[in-house]
Parts: sequence; structure tokens; C-alpha cells
Amino acid sequence: MALMIKGGTVVNADQTLKADVLCVDGKIVQVGADLPVPAGAEVVDAGGLYVMPGGIDPHTHMQLPFMGTVATEDFYTGTAAGLAGGTTMIIDFVIPNPQQPLMEAYQTWREWAAKAVSDYSFHVAVTWWDDSVGSDMERLVKEEGVNSFKHFMAYKNAIMAEDETLVNSFSRCLELGAMPTVHAENGELVYHLQRKLIAMGLTGPEAHPLSRPSEVEGEAANRAIRIAQSLGVPLYLVHVSCKEAVDEIARARHEGQRVYGEVLAGHLELDDSVYRNKDWEFAAAHVMSPPFRPKGHQEVLWKALQGGTLQTTATDHCCFCADQKAMGRNDFSRIPNGTAGVEDRMMVLWDSGVNSGRLTMNEFVAVTSTNAAKIFNVYPQKGSVSVGADADIVLWDPAASHTLSAKTHHQNIDFNIFEGRTVQGKPAYTISQGKVVFANGELKVERGAGRYIKRPAFPNIYEAVERYNRTHVPVPVERD
Amino acid sequence: MALMIKGGTVVNADQTLKADVLCVDGKIVQVGADLPVPAGAEVVDAGGLYVMPGGIDPHTHMQLPFMGTVATEDFYTGTAAGLAGGTTMIIDFVIPNPQQPLMEAYQTWREWAAKAVSDYSFHVAVTWWDDSVGSDMERLVKEEGVNSFKHFMAYKNAIMAEDETLVNSFSRCLELGAMPTVHAENGELVYHLQRKLIAMGLTGPEAHPLSRPSEVEGEAANRAIRIAQSLGVPLYLVHVSCKEAVDEIARARHEGQRVYGEVLAGHLELDDSVYRNKDWEFAAAHVMSPPFRPKGHQEVLWKALQGGTLQTTATDHCCFCADQKAMGRNDFSRIPNGTAGVEDRMMVLWDSGVNSGRLTMNEFVAVTSTNAAKIFNVYPQKGSVSVGADADIVLWDPAASHTLSAKTHHQNIDFNIFEGRTVQGKPAYTISQGKVVFANGELKVERGAGRYIKRPAFPNIYEAVERYNRTHVPVPVERD
Amino acid sequence: MALMIKGGTVVNADQTLKADVLCVDGKIVQVGADLPVPAGAEVVDAGGLYVMPGGIDPHTHMQLPFMGTVATEDFYTGTAAGLAGGTTMIIDFVIPNPQQPLMEAYQTWREWAAKAVSDYSFHVAVTWWDDSVGSDMERLVKEEGVNSFKHFMAYKNAIMAEDETLVNSFSRCLELGAMPTVHAENGELVYHLQRKLIAMGLTGPEAHPLSRPSEVEGEAANRAIRIAQSLGVPLYLVHVSCKEAVDEIARARHEGQRVYGEVLAGHLELDDSVYRNKDWEFAAAHVMSPPFRPKGHQEVLWKALQGGTLQTTATDHCCFCADQKAMGRNDFSRIPNGTAGVEDRMMVLWDSGVNSGRLTMNEFVAVTSTNAAKIFNVYPQKGSVSVGADADIVLWDPAASHTLSAKTHHQNIDFNIFEGRTVQGKPAYTISQGKVVFANGELKVERGAGRYIKRPAFPNIYEAVERYNRTHVPVPVERD
Amino acid sequence: MALMIKGGTVVNADQTLKADVLCVDGKIVQVGADLPVPAGAEVVDAGGLYVMPGGIDPHTHMQLPFMGTVATEDFYTGTAAGLAGGTTMIIDFVIPNPQQPLMEAYQTWREWAAKAVSDYSFHVAVTWWDDSVGSDMERLVKEEGVNSFKHFMAYKNAIMAEDETLVNSFSRCLELGAMPTVHAENGELVYHLQRKLIAMGLTGPEAHPLSRPSEVEGEAANRAIRIAQSLGVPLYLVHVSCKEAVDEIARARHEGQRVYGEVLAGHLELDDSVYRNKDWEFAAAHVMSPPFRPKGHQEVLWKALQGGTLQTTATDHCCFCADQKAMGRNDFSRIPNGTAGVEDRMMVLWDSGVNSGRLTMNEFVAVTSTNAAKIFNVYPQKGSVSVGADADIVLWDPAASHTLSAKTHHQNIDFNIFEGRTVQGKPAYTISQGKVVFANGELKVERGAGRYIKRPAFPNIYEAVERYNRTHVPVPVERD
Repeated sequence: MALMIKGGTVVNADQTLKADVLCVDGKIVQVGADLPVPAGAEVVDAGGLYVMPGGIDPHTHMQLPFMGTVATEDFYTGTAAGLAGGTTMIIDFVIPNPQQPLMEAYQTWREWAAKAVSDYSFHVAVTWWDDSVGSDMERLVKEEGVNSFKHFMAYKNAIMAEDETLVNSFSRCLELGAMPTVHAENGELVYHLQRKLIAMGLTGPEAHPLSRPSEVEGEAANRAIRIAQSLGVPLYLVHVSCKEAVDEIARARHEGQRVYGEVLAGHLELDDSVYRNKDWEFAAAHVMSPPFRPKGHQEVLWKALQGGTLQTTATDHCCFCADQKAMGRNDFSRIPNGTAGVEDRMMVLWDSGVNSGRLTMNEFVAVTSTNAAKIFNVYPQKGSVSVGADADIVLWDPAASHTLSAKTHHQNIDFNIFEGRTVQGKPAYTISQGKVVFANGELKVERGAGRYIKRPAFPNIYEAVERYNRTHVPVPVERD
Repeated sequence: MALMIKGGTVVNADQTLKADVLCVDGKIVQVGADLPVPAGAEVVDAGGLYVMPGGIDPHTHMQLPFMGTVATEDFYTGTAAGLAGGTTMIIDFVIPNPQQPLMEAYQTWREWAAKAVSDYSFHVAVTWWDDSVGSDMERLVKEEGVNSFKHFMAYKNAIMAEDETLVNSFSRCLELGAMPTVHAENGELVYHLQRKLIAMGLTGPEAHPLSRPSEVEGEAANRAIRIAQSLGVPLYLVHVSCKEAVDEIARARHEGQRVYGEVLAGHLELDDSVYRNKDWEFAAAHVMSPPFRPKGHQEVLWKALQGGTLQTTATDHCCFCADQKAMGRNDFSRIPNGTAGVEDRMMVLWDSGVNSGRLTMNEFVAVTSTNAAKIFNVYPQKGSVSVGADADIVLWDPAASHTLSAKTHHQNIDFNIFEGRTVQGKPAYTISQGKVVFANGELKVERGAGRYIKRPAFPNIYEAVERYNRTHVPVPVERD
Repeated sequence: MALMIKGGTVVNADQTLKADVLCVDGKIVQVGADLPVPAGAEVVDAGGLYVMPGGIDPHTHMQLPFMGTVATEDFYTGTAAGLAGGTTMIIDFVIPNPQQPLMEAYQTWREWAAKAVSDYSFHVAVTWWDDSVGSDMERLVKEEGVNSFKHFMAYKNAIMAEDETLVNSFSRCLELGAMPTVHAENGELVYHLQRKLIAMGLTGPEAHPLSRPSEVEGEAANRAIRIAQSLGVPLYLVHVSCKEAVDEIARARHEGQRVYGEVLAGHLELDDSVYRNKDWEFAAAHVMSPPFRPKGHQEVLWKALQGGTLQTTATDHCCFCADQKAMGRNDFSRIPNGTAGVEDRMMVLWDSGVNSGRLTMNEFVAVTSTNAAKIFNVYPQKGSVSVGADADIVLWDPAASHTLSAKTHHQNIDFNIFEGRTVQGKPAYTISQGKVVFANGELKVERGAGRYIKRPAFPNIYEAVERYNRTHVPVPVERD
Repeated sequence: MALMIKGGTVVNADQTLKADVLCVDGKIVQVGADLPVPAGAEVVDAGGLYVMPGGIDPHTHMQLPFMGTVATEDFYTGTAAGLAGGTTMIIDFVIPNPQQPLMEAYQTWREWAAKAVSDYSFHVAVTWWDDSVGSDMERLVKEEGVNSFKHFMAYKNAIMAEDETLVNSFSRCLELGAMPTVHAENGELVYHLQRKLIAMGLTGPEAHPLSRPSEVEGEAANRAIRIAQSLGVPLYLVHVSCKEAVDEIARARHEGQRVYGEVLAGHLELDDSVYRNKDWEFAAAHVMSPPFRPKGHQEVLWKALQGGTLQTTATDHCCFCADQKAMGRNDFSRIPNGTAGVEDRMMVLWDSGVNSGRLTMNEFVAVTSTNAAKIFNVYPQKGSVSVGADADIVLWDPAASHTLSAKTHHQNIDFNIFEGRTVQGKPAYTISQGKVVFANGELKVERGAGRYIKRPAFPNIYEAVERYNRTHVPVPVERD
């Protein structure tokens, strides 16, 4: 099964070149100028289009059971929506309840995900600790291709990981060649502030951002980074949303620590005025954690993405509809946390990033795809338009415009945080496993066609991490 | 009872002037040029001397029960040693055991301190939390003149305060107009690193600094600062020892937060090479927490003191002799933590600070006395040579030199961390409550002459703190 | 001639106390509770009022010849307006033309200032360099009580000092015990951007801030600080207006360098939207340099003032009326640069600073008076309500409100940049040289009553500066 | 002419893979596992070796006329030495005298370089300004493939560019799609400090670093960055040597500015103690500018390289022998500035960078080759082992060790700043234009075989730079 992408401009993270791309059996087999079209090959005319690696969204929560309900977007609809937006792979999260065996939760999520239409993978959360957790982590790494573990520093009395768990799990990650990741918010402070605000009579969504101000994220970001530093382990911070956290990451990287940061499309674009909207439903629809931030933080995030302090973009795609949000009508702290975006991310990033001159096209590819592939060690299988890579490709039309809206999006949610925004630049075609699955606005997907992608442990940076730790082993002083 | 200080140069934090000083009944009653000597007044010739506020050491631990033993220096010997070094007031710590009522511990310490020869006061530690702790805090503030509460973020399984305790106690401090203070080290990490080092066979004192590297302090400093920021309460960090913590304080102050930092004479001067000394006793004698830091941090601390990021100097004076240190012969984590210095502090600060041009004499007065008096709200009763102030005065001889040594010091400990160092500049006379208690190297003290100094709540900064918090109360959004 | 201030609360930079204040012959002779009223003394009832040191505005330009016109406010009207706002001393600038002898310019300004109604002093600008300039600097310091020299890094082709001049003059200041000060903007860049904007057709006031963006100030601030560092001389930056410059000062101070920063009331409060006002006259009335900055910078300045990175507040009071501003009708670069404020400064600072909880009252006194007195070495003669000080005092009514307006102000200008703003807190009485010169909104001033104040060289910080430089003299390596 | 590299591990900046590499006619034509060997192909056994892009040294000065003499290393010997160290391309500098036409100087350097044995290119210095300079820049860019222009901010009275020249030339670079680069040291301060030190009797090499302390570099780095920011042009700083400059670059990048930094192998490894060596010749041999820095700066540079603040490594290779250095026997400011290293760089970087765990192998490739190729727009022709690239390759033996020494090096200089250092990891083979030119320690080079490499203007980042500038064009306010 051959697919020839003809006449386009290939844009990779490291270079741009005029070239055709030939895909056979789900792999890219040739990249070059004026390639001959093999007999029987399907041909896509990429004239005027950019041929880029399909997007990777490293942070989604399809059909997540959370806060007493379940996210409406499942792996089928969610991965389809991703393809419609040019995203050809997601990394979702297995989240065990405290005391639940990691393997058990992992199997549950694998079953849920079998219906996906694009490739996918899983981070696994460590929400508690005993020796069995350490053993399951090993099995996940060695047998299941999991190379990243998530830690929630928020959500006290639920899935929050205490420092003791962080220290143990980060240490285990180091042994296993895996990447620890954190949701950085101080859960103790959030809990205190929630109680205090409610006691003051602030029960509406406007209290949500006040219950988790940016210093609460800055604190946790610093704590996770310092723990990682003490243990000599790399670290990845999900959904960095504010100046305080950006500054911590920048400092750590400036000091040579291997710390990575992810930013959500929503945090780049929206500010916290949404929570003060007179319409409760509108305000509640934006409730997620960390919240959208006061004006000013957005520019900081953009600059951090430009300057390399942040490496990846994601969505934390987690869909709750109006009836679910209504659970928190009288208490903002009960509004299910989550917003959508897996379909919108790349268009928003292109429009605000490339059209404005903040990012080159190569940098766009890096932050929407290649960097995630490298950090989570599936590069160049993913994140690259090159010979040998998976044929997950988006053909981008920089001249086309598109209006983002819940009315037209493929996401299974009744709200779009970018509602009404017209962007310039959108996917003309999306190719997954060498097949055109989205073209001219139409999805052509097959339920269950998506594959679980194993991600090997010990990415290249571990080569340096281990050498560094080896050369810093202390020695006892000889005394009489 | 009158004492006339004649012919000296008065140096206060804000100015320098040639003036005589007349003290009557323990108070300063006149400051001016060419004052007439009242009949019967004792006259001290201050020609060539600087007449400065007596030092305040805001961080001592006299006769502290700790790590299975008791500090050898008691309130009698300790305050005497202070006077010999020009320090006329100490602020020590009441440290309740977890679950022990604060008032009970407070009474115990008050009894111990009755034998002091100079004035003293107490911070009280909050090592645990329930409502009774909050009540006792109120009683201590309102009835006992305690306006500062200490929190240990280190010493897991002992006196470590968890985040929940920090949040509750800081909030209570705000209500009471008191200052929360922290020992900033992440106890969880320290515990983990101690276990790891011992497992690696590193049981000697050289492992002590490795078990609590500077990032561990930086983490806790940031955490305490962020918690204080979230709650709108001021904060004081004791014994700031490293660049990481300094940077956090500087950042917070730069952003307008009311955060204060204290530095120990030892941390300014010594580096961590002491722990790698071949002589176990020498190395163990330096074990304290935070530990002395790698070369480079000392200069950072000095600059922070010069630039105003740090405001006070102290000693954490806590004496354990060789036989006590020996308890940790086979396990560094069992070496009682503590070093001396209440007598040495001002001489070291003058020699390294003023003689080098890092500090003006006025700044020397500020960082050894006045700033502590202001922060802990006993200014201008203490910390000032001015009419109405307590007659706690040191007459400083900038021309005299002195060699610091355990052989000659008045401190009740068999070791001096500045052993053999010759400083230029030392107290010629120390005056406490208007009496000469140290002159020409001789102490003339009276057991029990020291008074407990009540420190009122709501120092001037609270005026601004409360206005700030009042103007930042959030309001609910009006919705239909 | 005695004046008794009865029943007020004295607020100094270091403390607050209930006390009466007795002034005799222009000096404060007693401060204490319940003072007896001497026979014949005038009594002012200070009940409910704060008794504070009169303000010092260290940056004014009365009757300055500039950009082809002359500032409308002269030393008579200007110092009177100052008194109406609680400011009892100004430090103005002598600005020689390039090649003009400094002494000659100095004499001119002294003559102009003879009509002042409050005390005043002069900084002298160094706008060019040869040996005679160095000689005049010495004479000014030793004979005329000038201890500060100003350098304009902007205004190319006019009074701009090149690096060579900066290096020579700063070095000379060090020898003389004087303080170099700078207006920090890169004049080369400003010139280039002015030409470029005009070439693009941007000739209106909206181009003014674009021609001198904040990085242009950040550059010059850094340059001046680095030059001062290389030479070992302290430095004072006038009218710091932006984050970039604040960050440079903070960094330098954090590294122990003696660098001081001044901020204008206008820069604290206004943003650059004024330049885009549809009304040309309104926009032009705000043209000054550095310009008002984009939103966000104001908060940075406030925090820098709170955190101690900036020490003084001023106005750069320099009045040009609408007919003068009209000179730049077709070319923004010809609009005379300057705005007023000597009367408004303290009210604006109190309202935005104290009422908001940003500053304590003590800090208000420090930043409006005491710090300037210390830095320019007239403390405690000025900047202090204490025995022996000049009786320059403001009695502040925190309960009174006042609306700032060109219609009612005493400033000789047809515009007020704070027009219409109602502040809470204002001077009830102003006392200059022990006389009530402003009471209940009425000025009672005497032309020429103001005195020229000599400011001695070698302020206290020089004690440390010189010791520092002495201990850092390099020594040659001995070689065969 | 075919060359097959068999059995090695290809290490590129973005990935590592086991693969053979086939080169034909100077180009890489195949990269893949188990490639068949074409008939007649030469085969190199790369078992156990890393197959990496040949090094690019973007900063050399072959046969430079400077300070009254001429560098001893010419383009023939210098490029040969480079190949012996794995460096297959240099970018040297054309440096016109002030008033000399750029084209004239360019032609001179092209003639000198004709004897090179590896590929090379040229930056051209702008040392003065008039319209003809701007015209020559255009010709150089459009006809000669020059896309970078150098500016010396040091060397007053010689080649120093004043701010006016910087502003004009940077603006011209923006129009032409070229990269401005700077040697960042404040020449005015250097000149002043040189005169001052000599006046103090400090005439030896120990005065060299004192005459150009790190703040002098920090100042100029900031100035250049701010000028670039004001003009909207990218910037590259050569030989960043100190914390001050690193901090400026980090800040700028953190704020989204496109600024790049280069570091020399020497600055990473040596400190300024070399200048205090008792042996004048030893000390003088290290004289270069910026000088080697006090201990501490080296670690900062390494961390900046690790964290991405610095992107490239170079040598500033400029050879002066003992007899030339002797010109400054009585005046350090006359010692010809320059040290060697083109041969040593990659070995030093590997040993200190990779073996220590600071850098991954991929990062090593990036900082020794790929990043320079990208920034100076010859990627992927250079800096990549991939199909279509020039066959400039180094086969690296990580197990071999080598002792650096003037006795054995190929560099035409009697001194080696790394003398006696044994490194682990060195080139086993170097391949230039598809030919083995260095094998088993033997050079097999051909005089004149090196080619001048044209570098096109408008690298990918210009795409974003121009979009950014276009979206920030100011518009006039409409007024009546």
C-alpha cells in the first residue's frame, strides 16, 4: 500500500526542503525531490502545503473517571478529533486509585484504548507508594513499554503524592531509565484556600483561580525540581501555566539540570477573566487545573516556548459537558476539572506562533511533535518526516483559514474554549500509518486502527545522566 | 545609678556622630556632645572607641535537649559569653515536643532562663498542630510577649512540621500579628539521603553535608516563602546558608513580599572542607544544620548581607562537646547538631565585614543589632543608642586585635570553629542595663540579672501587611 | 522663635511614636511625650496628624533652558508648590553646555535660585570632559558643597556624555568622595529610532515612547553600573522607569555593589497609553524622557520600591506649557521634554503606597525624604524629625482627601498629569525652617527665604567604598 | 570515488543509530544498516567507533596580521591541524582596517586561504562605517556567500566599532538577511584600565585579566543584545567567557530574543591563575581576549552549554609564538593576543563534556558541529551525517586516549594551553570531501584541496524574524 505525497515542502524540526515523500505499508520509505510515483500508489498533491510530522499530544485524558463523573470524550472519538486537527498520536494517562495496583489500572486503560483510531501510548501515574508499586513500575517499563510516570502534587485526599512518594518514585524512575513527570501544584495550599474561599462565600467559578494562584504552582515546580536535582534524575513538568513555574524551569536548565516543560494551548492563549464571566456555564466550562492565569503569564509562556525553556505543547484534553460541570453549581471545588483541545492545538499554535513570528515553522514542528517524540523516546519513529519513520504526517495549508467552534469541531464536548476564533493555517490532509484519514475536512477513520506504542526506557539523555551520577559518587574520608 | 560614656563616637544604624552618652537606671537619658558628668556618675573613657548598640543574637539554643543529649552551654554561661563578645541580648527558642502543649514548654524554658546575666527573649516552635496549639499561640502572644514562632521543616520523625502545620500556624501568626520563622530544609529529602549515604558506607562526618545539599535548603526556603505569599503573611528564615535560599529570598523581596533572612557567622566564614578533615573530632565538631557549604556560597551570603537580601546575623549557638559528638561515631546522622559562636559573632562580623569594606559601620550595627530589634519589635528599646533606649551598649575598639580560641573563650564548649583566627576590632567594654559587665577582658556579671523581654505583636510592618490583605479581598461575581 | 507641634504621632523612617515636637530658631530642639509649651511659642495642634520629615525631591529642573525654550516654573514658584505638597527641599541640576566651565554654570544657577522659598541644593552635570572639568569638580566639592554629579547618557548631539566622559568623571567622583548619577538611556539608539520613526511617517507623540523603548534604558543602566563596578565607585540612577533598569539595579545590589535608584511619581502611576490619546495637546503634555511605560512596568517599579531596589522618589519637575509643547507639532522629537509634580508627589505616594499596603508609613518617610537625605549626605539635618535636625516638617492628615488638578495646583503649568485624581491623605501643615509656611491650603511663603544647602563629600558609604578598594589593589607577580 | 564506513554507530545531533555510511564523490549517498559495499569502494572499519559530522570551528584567525605581527598558523597548516582534531571546516574572519573597503580585504583573505586543505568560509568584520560599507556588505552577501558580519566592541584606537557603527551595521544585516556577531568587551573601559594598571606598575601578564574583568564583557554583551533587540535583528556573541555575559544571553533568550552564544574550549577549561605564573613566557602564552576567567566561570560556561544558553564551541585559534609574545615584555598590553586550539577542541570537549556526563553524544555533535552549521546556514550540507550532506566525517574512538602537547600537535605554534593533558576519546579517522585525510595519527592532506563554502543569507530563523518585525510595525494615531 503506497502513498506518494507530491510537490510539497517538507518541514522537519531541523530543516525545510522541497521534497516528495513516499509511504509504503505505514512507513516512510523515500524523501527526495522529484520522486517517481510507483505503480498503484495513491498520490496526494501537496503543492503549496507543508509536509510535517503529525502532531503528538503528550497530555490527554480520554474517558477519565474523575471527580465523580467520567470524561465524555473516549479513545475513539478523541483520537479521531486529534486526526482532524493534525495530531496523529496521543499519550494518555493511566491513573490508579491510591492502593490500586498499577498493573491493574494499566490493563483497564489498555482495554479502554483499544478502540482508538490513531496511535497512542500511556504515562502511568504513581499515586501512592509501597514496594509493590516499585515492582509494577519495573514490569511496566520492561514488559509494557512505559517509560514515564506521572505524579500529582495536587488533589489532597485523592491522588496527591506526598514528598515521600515523590522521592521513592523518582528514585525508582532513575533505576529504570524512565522519566518522572509532575502536575505541579501544592495540594495542601489549594485545599486550604478552597476552604477559606468557600467560608468567605466565594463559591462560584471566579474562586477557582483564587484557590490555586500561580505561586502554588511555582512552589510545587520548585519542589519537584529540587527533589529531582537531589536524586540526579531528569524531570518533566506537565501543563506549565505561569511565570513562577517557567522561572524555576529556566533556572534549573540554566544550571545544567535536565528538566523539561510542557505548555497547553489554552494556557498560552486564555487568561483568567473567563472565570469572572457573568454566565456560570461559560465560566465553569473553563475550570481546569492549573487554571487560566492573569494577563501577562501568557506572554511569559510564549517566550519560554520560543527560548527553549518549554519544549512541548499539549492540551490536557479532558471533556466534561455542561451537565457534568453543573455538579459544582454551589461549590466551585466540585466542578469537574477539564477542558478540550486535542483537535485545536496545532491550529492555535500555528496561528499564534508561526503567523506572529514567534516561531519558525521548524520550531512549530519541534514543539508540536518532535520534542515530545524525543523526550518520550519514540523519535525518529514519530516526530520526523524521514526514511524509516512511521508515516504519521500532516499536510498543512498555510493559506487556509478555519473558525474553531463547538458547533463544528469533532471533539465530543459541548464547548470550545477557542469558540469563534478564526485561525489561518490548518491541516489539509492528515495521514496516519500511511493512510489518508482526514482530507478536506472529512474524517475517514477506522475504529481500533490505532496501535499502542511501546516506548523504550533509557532515552539518549540517560547516557549522560548515568555518566554524571557515576562521576559524582562520593567517597568516604580515610581516617585512622 | 549613672554611667557616663565620654568622648566616643556613637555609631547607630542610621548615622555616626561624636557624642557622649549618659545612662541612668538602665536607660539612656542623654546623647550629645560634651555632656556634663553628673555627680557620682561612673565615667568610661570612650576615646578612640565606637559606641554602638549591644549586639542581639536572635538565634541561640542554650541548654537545649536535642538528639539524646543536652547542650552544655546554659543560660548563665551562654549569656555571659555573649556579653564578652558585645552581645547584650539573645532570643532563644522554646521547642515543645510533638503533642506537648506550647505553654508547658514555654514555662520550662522560662525557668531554665532565669539564671541569665543579660536580657533575653523567646521564639516558640510549632512542631505539631491542633486547635490547642492555636490557642496557646494566642496566649503566648497576648500574655507572654512572644511575637515569633519557629517551624522546623527538617528533622523528620522528630520536630518536623508538615505543610499542613505550616499552613495552619502561618495563618494563625497572621491573625495574631506575629512573625513565622522557618528552619528551611526538606526533611524528607534529608532522611532519604541520610539512609542512602549510610547504605553506601558513608558513615563519617563527610557525609553530613552530602545528606543536606544546598538544593534541599533552597527547596524548603521556596516552599515556606510561597506558603507565606499565598496566605499574605510575612516570613523570617533563620540561618540562611546557601545561594539557593538567598536567591529565593531576593526574588520574593524583589516582588514586594515581606521576607527576611538571617545568616550565621559560621556560614559566612567556613566552607564544607571541614567535614573532610582527617580528624574525626574536628570534623564532627562542625556538624550542624544546615551544614557549612561548598566554597562560593560564603561570598554569596556576604553579598546578600551587603545588598540587603539578608538583614540579621546570628549564631545558632548550640554547644555539644567532643564526648557528645562521639555519639555519632558510627553514624553521622547521630552526631548532635550544633556549634558555638555567641561570643565570636560580632568580632568575626567586624573583621570580615567592616575591615574588608563590605559593610559600613552603620551597616554593621544594623546587621548585628538594629535589624533584629526592628523585625522582632523591640526597637528602639533595643538596637539603638538613643534617648529612652535600654542602656545595652558595646564600646568597640577598632584598633585592638584578638585571637579567637577555645582556650580563651568564655563559651562552655571545648571547641571553637574560628580557632586561631586573629581579628582586628573587639569589645573594649560591654554595658548591660547601664552597668559595665565586661571590661578589659574581664566579665563582671550577676547570675539572674538578665530580664525576660516581652516583644509586642503587630510590629510596624503589620500596618502595611493588613492594609495590603484588606485591599486584596476577593469579591464574588454577581450572577443571576 | 518657637513652634510647638502638639499631640501628633511622629513618623520617622525607623520608628513611629506619640510625641510632641518643639522647634526653636529653625531647629528641632525637643521630641517627647507631653512636652511643656514654652512661653510665646506658637502651637500647632497635630491631633490625628502624622508628624513627618518634610519631603525631599532630589530631581527638579526649575526654569531650565532646554530644547529651545525655558521651563515655566522658576525657583520661586516651584519651591512654593513643593511646600504646598509637603516637600521642604529640592535638589535641582546645574547643566553646563558642552565646553562651558562648570563653575560658570554653577554660578548662574545659584543666582537663579536665590528667590527660592524653601531650602535647595544642586547636582552639577558633567556634559563634556577635559582637565578643567576635573578641576571644577574639585572646587565644587570642596568649596561649594556639591557632592553629586549628573551624566546624561541620552540627548546625542547635545548634552550626552560618551563612555570616555563617564569613565573620567566617575573616576574623579571616586577621588572626591562624590556620587555620580546618570540619566540612563542609550542616546545613539534613541537618535536612530527617532530618525527611523519619522521616516516612517510617525511624527506624533505616540512615536515618543517608541523612540526610547525600555531596552534602551536597560542598556544604559547596565552600562553605567558596569562602568561604576569596574572603577569601584557608587552610583545613583535617576528616574528609573522600567523593569529592565530595575533588574539591572537589583542584580548589582544583589552582588554587593553600591547602586541606588530613584523613581518618579509619574512613572509609578501612568502608562504609555497617554501618548496615543487622540488629543495632541494631552499626549504632548506627557512627553518626557524616559517616557511613561507600557502597563506592567508600574507594578515592577512599585515592587522595587517596596523591596528596596529603589530608594528614592522624585518628580523630574520640569514645566512646559501647551504653547511650548507645540514646538513639536510636526516632529515629536522637538516637543520639549518635561512634566510637573513637585507638589503632587507625596500625596500620590501616600495614596498609592500607604493606603494600598505597599508601604508602611515609615517606608513612606524613607522613600520621600530620609533616603535622599542619607544618599546625598544631609542626614539627619534633613530627613529626620529628631533633636538637632532642621525643622522641615510636614503634618500629614491621613483622613483628608484632595483632588489633584491644574485648576487648583500651585505649580506654574497648565497641565497636571494626575488631573482629576482624588487622593486620601494630604499635608495639613508644612513647616520650613521652623515656620508654618503652608496651612489649611494656604501658602505663607517669603521670596528668597530658602537657603542653599551644602552637602559634604564622603558620605558614610565612602568609608566602606574606600576600604573595599584598598583591599582590592592588585599586586604585581614577582618574576626573575 | 566511493568510501564505505562500515559497522559504526552514527551519532547525529538528533539521534544515534547503528548504520553504515556510503560516500561517493564527496557526498554521503547512503546511510543504513548493513549496506552492500560497492565495487571499488574503499572501506573503513568503524567497529567500536562513533561516526559523527566533522567538527566546525566557527572562530579561527589563520595568518592574521595583528598588533604588529602576523599569526604563525596559516590556512594550510591550520586547516590540516583542524583535520587532525576531527574538524573539517573552519569559519575564519576577514578584518578590514578602518577605512579599508570590505571587498578589498575580502579578496586578500580569499587569496591567503586558497591553500587550505579543508573547507572554510569567512565572516567579515565591520570596523568602520559609511555608505560604501553598506554597499560592500550587500555585495558580500549576494555575490560572495557571506552571511555573517563581525563587530569588535574592544580594541579602542584600532578596530573598535562605536555604537553608531553597531547600529548601522546591525540594521544593514537585518535588511540583508545576515547575522551580526560581536566580540563583546567595552573597549573604553579596557583602555582606561590598561593605562591605570600600567601607571600602578603592573606591566606583566597578570595585569591582562585585570584590565578586562568580566563586567567589561558583561557590559558589552548587554549593549549588543539591547541594540539588536531595539532593531529586531538576531545576534551571535563570539567567545562568551564569563557568567556576566552568559546571564545576559540567558535573559535575552528567556524573553524570546534570538541570541546565540559561542564558547571557546579554553574558556571552558582554564582559569586566570595562568597569568600569575612565575614564568613570563607561560603567562604571556595565555594572553588572549577575553582572558581566561577566575575559577567559577568555567562551571557557569559548562552549564550554559548544557542548558542551551550557548550553542557553539570554537577556539579563536590565533597563534603567536614566544618571540612574538615577547613584544609585550615590558607592557602586557602589547603582548599579541591569541592562543591555539583548532586541533584540540573536539578532544577537550569530548573528555570534559561527554565523559563527565555533562553532554550526551548527540549534544556533543550539536555543539561542535551541527549548531554552527545551522546558525551560519550551511546545514545539512555540513553538520549532519545524512544522505545528501557533504562527506565531512569524523570517526571517533571513545576508548582511545591521547596526550595533548606542543611537542606532538600539528598546530604551528610552540605552545599548547592544554599541555600534558590526557584525554579519553579522539579521532581515529577524519574524512573530508569523502576522502580519508587523517588516519591512525597520520595526516594525508592536499594543499589547496579545501573549498570556499558560500553561506546563503536568510537562514530559517529569518522567516520568523521578518514575520515578527512585520507584525510589530507601529501605526500613527489618527488625530484631527
